Amino acid sequence: MNETSFSLAGTFQELLASKKYTTIRDVLVTMNPSDVAAVLNEVEEKELALLFRLLPKEQAAETFVEMDPELQELLIKGFSDTELKEVMDELYVDDAVDIVEEMPANVVKRILKAADPQMRKEINEILRYPENSAGAWMTTEYVSLRPEMTVGDAITRIRRTGVDKETIYTCYVTKDRLLLGLVSVKDLLLAQDDDTLISDIMETNVISVDTMTDQEEVAHMLSKYNFLALPVVDTGGRLVGIITFDDAMDVLQEEATEDMEIMAGMTPSDKTYLRSTPWDLFKHRIPWLLLLMVSATFTGMIISGFEDALAAQVVLTAFIPMLMDTGGNSGSQSSVTIIRALSLGELEFKDLPKVIWNEVRTAAMAGAVLAVACFGKIMLVDRLIMGNPSVTVMVALVVCMTLAITVLVAKVIGCTLPMLAKRLGFDPAVMASPFITTAVDAVSLLVYFFIATALLQM
Amino acid sequence: MNETSFSLAGTFQELLASKKYTTIRDVLVTMNPSDVAAVLNEVEEKELALLFRLLPKEQAAETFVEMDPELQELLIKGFSDTELKEVMDELYVDDAVDIVEEMPANVVKRILKAADPQMRKEINEILRYPENSAGAWMTTEYVSLRPEMTVGDAITRIRRTGVDKETIYTCYVTKDRLLLGLVSVKDLLLAQDDDTLISDIMETNVISVDTMTDQEEVAHMLSKYNFLALPVVDTGGRLVGIITFDDAMDVLQEEATEDMEIMAGMTPSDKTYLRSTPWDLFKHRIPWLLLLMVSATFTGMIISGFEDALAAQVVLTAFIPMLMDTGGNSGSQSSVTIIRALSLGELEFKDLPKVIWNEVRTAAMAGAVLAVACFGKIMLVDRLIMGNPSVTVMVALVVCMTLAITVLVAKVIGCTLPMLAKRLGFDPAVMASPFITTAVDAVSLLVYFFIATALLQM
Repeated sequence: MNETSFSLAGTFQELLASKKYTTIRDVLVTMNPSDVAAVLNEVEEKELALLFRLLPKEQAAETFVEMDPELQELLIKGFSDTELKEVMDELYVDDAVDIVEEMPANVVKRILKAADPQMRKEINEILRYPENSAGAWMTTEYVSLRPEMTVGDAITRIRRTGVDKETIYTCYVTKDRLLLGLVSVKDLLLAQDDDTLISDIMETNVISVDTMTDQEEVAHMLSKYNFLALPVVDTGGRLVGIITFDDAMDVLQEEATEDMEIMAGMTPSDKTYLRSTPWDLFKHRIPWLLLLMVSATFTGMIISGFEDALAAQVVLTAFIPMLMDTGGNSGSQSSVTIIRALSLGELEFKDLPKVIWNEVRTAAMAGAVLAVACFGKIMLVDRLIMGNPSVTVMVALVVCMTLAITVLVAKVIGCTLPMLAKRLGFDPAVMASPFITTAVDAVSLLVYFFIATALLQM
Repeated sequence: MNETSFSLAGTFQELLASKKYTTIRDVLVTMNPSDVAAVLNEVEEKELALLFRLLPKEQAAETFVEMDPELQELLIKGFSDTELKEVMDELYVDDAVDIVEEMPANVVKRILKAADPQMRKEINEILRYPENSAGAWMTTEYVSLRPEMTVGDAITRIRRTGVDKETIYTCYVTKDRLLLGLVSVKDLLLAQDDDTLISDIMETNVISVDTMTDQEEVAHMLSKYNFLALPVVDTGGRLVGIITFDDAMDVLQEEATEDMEIMAGMTPSDKTYLRSTPWDLFKHRIPWLLLLMVSATFTGMIISGFEDALAAQVVLTAFIPMLMDTGGNSGSQSSVTIIRALSLGELEFKDLPKVIWNEVRTAAMAGAVLAVACFGKIMLVDRLIMGNPSVTVMVALVVCMTLAITVLVAKVIGCTLPMLAKRLGFDPAVMASPFITTAVDAVSLLVYFFIATALLQM
């Protein structure tokens, strides 16, 4: 797909240069809005406005929604008031709100001025809900039916009002704005008789969300129930909007990206990689790097504390990286597994004892296998092949015992910290590799020097 | 949701014990299939079959699809042939295939015997496609229309055949099985005139996938275009099936989980955490732990090679963990960012020079800030507060120079390896924290000892 869009941008640039507007338009109208947006993202500023103006009205609005905020802002600034109004008239309310949220104040003012009064009212209402809540994310353009309508009435109503609705396939049955039930277009079409009452075929056990429900929870519910849309109700049970599956897909993707970024010790970013400047990347990465560097002071202090022992047995130093890395890897495995399970709703805090017991048994197996393998490797590689005389059997034993204990401690820390974080209301993803590694480093070094001092009579 | 399901299981168990079957049934019919499945996952084996038999036929089949494979197997084994046939008759082909793929051979035999001949044929056809391909994942139950039909004919056809279709909302227009176009139910309902020909209103520029397209690519396309369904065609352009948005959501979630598992050094697992035994967890975790432990031999060898230098300046050892961890963290930040961008299709191999140049500039800023902060920290904490006389200004300089270089190398390795892996046809996610950490450890130690030997005249 990307390959195609890329060469297309070049073709369009050539066609623009030779003023072949009809050809461009003929090609554009065959394309899907998100593919047009991809091409527009590639061209120069002055070509952008030219190409955009070649799009038919409805396709222009749909393409506009798919574009990057920077380009949207650029286009709006270049629009005449009439052009802006034309785009606004074709937008769904939720898309208009998304755009408004990304624009600077002066652009927002122009957008709201260009919107018709009804839309302006709805945009302002949605803007009042907190970011990432269902209320801020919903659209107010749904099909509502009354319970006393017949199937025939309902189909007539859909035909009359459906063109501007985000989805017509799930219709909501309300009375005095109270959500009573829902009926799908499939139910309407498959109904035996056009005179059947909506109240007789509607599904009354409706799963809905509150305006304040977090968008991630809404997305998980849509995915769990395989719904096309979820209704959003206010505290009085009155229907105020709907959220559709396509928005849920985007949220699920963004949420996974965010978790991965946090797990790798970064603050999450909204920008795609190629749109991020080095300064953007720097800002999102430096805080954790600094924090973790400073917290490594403790590991340094532990090593300094055992400086004399290390000077006597320098060979012990050679195994520090292996012990720290294996500990860190073991801990990350547990923490990432738990963080993902928490985020998918597969685990709750009450499962903690079961989780710890699972991890302890896993760690026992992994620790045993690693210790034996490590003993073999040290004896074979370090002692026999490399012929290092200071690698004695006792040294190998110290290393392998430390390894087994470190794996155990790492797995317990790795599974416990994310669950505790969640319980305390923090994001569990913070408790991933970088954090666990730093914690496990200190523990593994303490264990190492303690066992070494005891067994090697230092 | 979980809370509710959990207490419900207890309620059902009590109601079962007092044989209040009507009450149970009254409650069950109000519930959504995936919530019923959650309750059934909680109860005992003998109660499971009892509760399942209380469900009305259609709800039973929908619930069956949402249950864990182990419980499905258990239920099938307890079914009479008639019961199995009843469930099979209500299943969509793609769901039946999913179940068949999870069952042992003897259960599969019974399932295929219970399916009607048409469904058996379709199941067998789908089973022939490779796992994770669009062909293996599609359903054959779509609405097809002919171009010469009128809107009225089309609506009649949907009303007659729609009940067994996975979705009726996107209908595909075919002639001799060739895919010519598509028309949505919205288009049909909003058409001005029932006599309009389908060929006049159908969208002819249809985006479709091939039977061999990877399921992840299909899911990304559904998400990108906000489609309800994508048509699957064979090499001759003949329509063979469709893939719907709800399956795409599941794939996007699974794919993100899989990437996270691989990035944390685990082989991906299909089971949820609470259904995994310690043995499952062990199997998925030990290979990478062993591999990375053995590869740490190199770091050990580097330290052994500089043993004399370390014995002379034991203070250098105290900074090894900090250098290794900061290098590892810097590298993971870059690699995870790049891996995610690759997986979302935001980056291609041709962007490599741009990516490296981005990372070099980011690393220059991060390295400079970290080096200055580290110098300050060493001077203040290690020298002044802790009063360690062996921490000289020269030692601090050696550490900080190493830190800056390590960050630079780590970021370049971290962004390059995933892109190379992708180019060579491997999964880029393998090139995440554990792998990068091991690679960066060796580099940072070599730089450290090289600079130390040069500046400290060891």
